[in-house]
Amino acid sequence: MTAARDIEALIELMARLPGLGPRSARRAVLHLIRKRGQVMAPLAQAMADVAARARECAICGNICTADICDICADDRRATGEICVVEDVADLWAMERGQAYRGRYHVLGGTLSALDSIGPDELGIPRLVARVREENATEVILALNATVDGQTTAHYIADALQGTGVAVSSLAQGVPIGGELDYLDDGTIQAALRARRRL
Amino acid sequence: MTAARDIEALIELMARLPGLGPRSARRAVLHLIRKRGQVMAPLAQAMADVAARARECAICGNICTADICDICADDRRATGEICVVEDVADLWAMERGQAYRGRYHVLGGTLSALDSIGPDELGIPRLVARVREENATEVILALNATVDGQTTAHYIADALQGTGVAVSSLAQGVPIGGELDYLDDGTIQAALRARRRL
Repeated sequence: MTAARDIEALIELMARLPGLGPRSARRAVLHLIRKRGQVMAPLAQAMADVAARARECAICGNICTADICDICADDRRATGEICVVEDVADLWAMERGQAYRGRYHVLGGTLSALDSIGPDELGIPRLVARVREENATEVILALNATVDGQTTAHYIADALQGTGVAVSSLAQGVPIGGELDYLDDGTIQAALRARRRL
Repeated sequence: MTAARDIEALIELMARLPGLGPRSARRAVLHLIRKRGQVMAPLAQAMADVAARARECAICGNICTADICDICADDRRATGEICVVEDVADLWAMERGQAYRGRYHVLGGTLSALDSIGPDELGIPRLVARVREENATEVILALNATVDGQTTAHYIADALQGTGVAVSSLAQGVPIGGELDYLDDGTIQAALRARRRL
């Protein structure tokens, strides 16, 4: 033990955050203590507030501090499109892209026989019901380009077949700024298959 | 804005910590919200406690949550040695080394004409007084091996001359596990000058 017991306990809690190890947690806590008035107290307060109020949006599964998230509560986003993402981090990534103007459905994972995650755990029946209720025009599958993600995408496309909704998925290809020399073979194959006439 | 306003505010506060950027702050906050019961609430509480109670030890300048830090309060550490360090991070580093059993004096910086940090700002007169009061036998200068650190060390050694206390400094040389090929010239020169007979 190098610091007082309660400071050491705080360092240990900080060290469990992703992206911080014991060394950077110590550095962060020292920084916080030096600025305990301006930074540490407001951070503790903000954290306590969010811990007490954070929950999942009852409609889409996004994380928010109200019953319904800002996106589901915003009438301008009732475009008839529902974008299906694996988790909230992916929803935030889509929002940062600032290209999508519709609403979301957060699965909270992918189908996995090993971890016994089935359609019910992912709320896929709820998604199908939501498509019918909201008369959705398009479901955009924005799942990770992994085996699990694509398996889940196929399952959802099948499950939605009876509803008549259009189902699409994000394009696969060369990322913006990507150099062919550094891309894996699968991406090059996918980009070639999906080539577009100019 | 990608998340609810208060969640976004928390991410911004987290992103100001050293070692975390906007991206890792977002990841950390998402992790915290997922474990809001087990991790986030206790972390917020620990942070609020430390923010309210952290202060500098009245004797040595270490950071603690009492008036006197654990080290100054521990009679077994009254060895007559005072180790002078630049800041609390250095004190913690010395403690991790588990080799030093005496007490400390934290300067809080180094002498710097540019930033107008003089002996008074660093508490050097207080150190001299403390050496006399405590009848210290040795002052160990554990300052960084930088120009500022060494200037400060020389100044302190001069200031202590009237007290009759022994003044020493950490040895300079090849770090344990260090490879000569990767060491800078200055370190090799210092290690050669300070060579020891085996």
